[in-house]
Amino acid sequence: MMQDKQYLMIPGPTPVPPAVFSAMARPIIGHRTEDFAEMYKRIVEKLQVVFQTKNDILVLTNSGTGGMEAAVANTVNPGDKVLALVTGNFGERFAKIARAYQGDVDEVNFSWGESVDLKVVEEKLKNNRYKVVLATQNETSTGVCNDIAGIGALVGKTDALLLVDGVSGVGGLEIKTDEWQVDILVTASQKAMMLPPGLAMVSVSPRAWEVIKESKSPHFYLSLSAAKKSYDKWNTAYTPGVSLFAGLEAGLDMMMAEGMSNVYARHKLLSKAAQAAVKALGLELFAREDSISPLVTAIKSPEGIDGDDIRKILKKEFGVTFAGGQSSLKGKIFRIAHMGFADKMDVIIAISALEMSLVRMGIPLEMGKGVQAAQQVFLGGK
Amino acid sequence: MMQDKQYLMIPGPTPVPPAVFSAMARPIIGHRTEDFAEMYKRIVEKLQVVFQTKNDILVLTNSGTGGMEAAVANTVNPGDKVLALVTGNFGERFAKIARAYQGDVDEVNFSWGESVDLKVVEEKLKNNRYKVVLATQNETSTGVCNDIAGIGALVGKTDALLLVDGVSGVGGLEIKTDEWQVDILVTASQKAMMLPPGLAMVSVSPRAWEVIKESKSPHFYLSLSAAKKSYDKWNTAYTPGVSLFAGLEAGLDMMMAEGMSNVYARHKLLSKAAQAAVKALGLELFAREDSISPLVTAIKSPEGIDGDDIRKILKKEFGVTFAGGQSSLKGKIFRIAHMGFADKMDVIIAISALEMSLVRMGIPLEMGKGVQAAQQVFLGGK
Repeated sequence: MMQDKQYLMIPGPTPVPPAVFSAMARPIIGHRTEDFAEMYKRIVEKLQVVFQTKNDILVLTNSGTGGMEAAVANTVNPGDKVLALVTGNFGERFAKIARAYQGDVDEVNFSWGESVDLKVVEEKLKNNRYKVVLATQNETSTGVCNDIAGIGALVGKTDALLLVDGVSGVGGLEIKTDEWQVDILVTASQKAMMLPPGLAMVSVSPRAWEVIKESKSPHFYLSLSAAKKSYDKWNTAYTPGVSLFAGLEAGLDMMMAEGMSNVYARHKLLSKAAQAAVKALGLELFAREDSISPLVTAIKSPEGIDGDDIRKILKKEFGVTFAGGQSSLKGKIFRIAHMGFADKMDVIIAISALEMSLVRMGIPLEMGKGVQAAQQVFLGGK
Repeated sequence: MMQDKQYLMIPGPTPVPPAVFSAMARPIIGHRTEDFAEMYKRIVEKLQVVFQTKNDILVLTNSGTGGMEAAVANTVNPGDKVLALVTGNFGERFAKIARAYQGDVDEVNFSWGESVDLKVVEEKLKNNRYKVVLATQNETSTGVCNDIAGIGALVGKTDALLLVDGVSGVGGLEIKTDEWQVDILVTASQKAMMLPPGLAMVSVSPRAWEVIKESKSPHFYLSLSAAKKSYDKWNTAYTPGVSLFAGLEAGLDMMMAEGMSNVYARHKLLSKAAQAAVKALGLELFAREDSISPLVTAIKSPEGIDGDDIRKILKKEFGVTFAGGQSSLKGKIFRIAHMGFADKMDVIIAISALEMSLVRMGIPLEMGKGVQAAQQVFLGGK
């Protein structure tokens, strides 16, 4: 196995483009400088295009979970009623954070592999007065994406704030923050945004700022009020990851150059090709057809085979890393991410390596069939 | 098409591993320093493993052709008899350089796509007294490699010096400089050595040094005597590309870590897979079976199709760059390099992109068939 020649296909951290690494290698700048302020301002303007929002977008120096905690810690006071819409591991994490801040959490679990059922949300909102609703845009643990537009339309009719974990979605999956009435949207650097881990981006609506003012929970580093005070002067409350900021701007520039609609179309195409390949190989997708995330394809391990054994061969023989199943799904599924810095050839690599690994394990299948199905999708069904 | 996501598959420059770029990004060091001397010494020790020689190996700051010129300019005086064994474009270039230094060049052209016929060499050496014999280890223009061991055994029986252009071969194709009696071996940084272009490495045998002492041709920057004087103090006559030196050491370290026999086996495996794929798709290899280079696969353009049109689609739709045919082969062949920083997945990418491009051009073929043939080679025929 060659050093350095590795194919990382997990839902974050994801591969980083050379242009982003180049930007990160620029000389370190001081954060209390005009240069930093100008860069922060430019970054926010570009993020507002991606988020489709006029809201403030605070860039925090921590990974995604820190961003999720900031959203909760600044809005949920002890005893506050919280509705948590859970479709997998990351939905559970969001609920867990709310409980850590002594929220009175009403956790609704949808079947893993399915998305949030809007009828259930409607019913819940009718019968309860929540202060905060927690939802996950893209649930990478199950390869499912949720209908944030639909959830937002329902929550928007109530007084509750809608907090969305867009950590693995934003940048690859369209989000209309303002139109869909998302009060706090959180994303992070290491997924579809094509950066190393270390930054969280948090947009806050005017309605959310009103609630944040009344925050009683203890917090300091994750204080959005402190962040906002500095943000108004294009600065940060505490030392920001200046190199990651530089990389973030470079990544955003790549996305702007490609065009956001092309970025989303690319992810959908990769997903469609991966799905076609999986079916052609006689394997089963884990997520329900209508809920499948365009950013990650979750596949059921073949009968009697541990998915983690497939993953070992993939890594050892072909340098390809897929993600495994989490919690109760361990060994039962494996997941191929195609988010961020990914294109057609990554799907070809993933599928051809999967074919070879399965054959290596003695599973009868015709190699090349999955690749062919992906190729046909890429050629537009021809 | 995504920025930055491109697959370069030409026979040099080739992709550079991150570890090499990282080494090149280290702070610039002065070249008249102990640090540089120590680095040069270490590099030469590692190059001697790759070259399989005890000879001096001078590292010159110029690309491969400069190294070839240094070999010729320092050994060929006006009127000297030179035997040039030509199997393609780069063999022609070597002969052209010898003529530029007014050598009396006996150029023997073998059919393009075939390797040097040892019987012809034997005959030539019997009937003539040459001062210098020029040969190409790996002729990338036709995807052919020559039997340097066989040529060396014949030339070694005469007084002639054997000068070998190993620019595209060394590092991917085994060479036994001492055992095969190669007097001057030239290679360059940007092929199987996995570096950007800018360095040539030239090994010189004791016998060659005797001849070089008598050199009468004009040269200065390319003077091997000047280089040798500095080399004996682990220095260079003129300013060396210090960052490329640092990268060269990192690349050599990667090769040592993999093990040279594994490096050669990897290249052979990639070549075997590419050949199998080409045949499975009903395409024709350009080089004669027994002469095929393990570093580059030359393929005949299908009847009535211009290879350069295939290459345009490959680049535009899939970000994949193959090399075209040179001189009289323009449009008639195209070439896939799998040298240096290349592994199994690069062949899969090349073949799947080729399949899609041919179908896009209306050529009837079953996509996935070529990929399957490559996969079978990778799995050891299972």
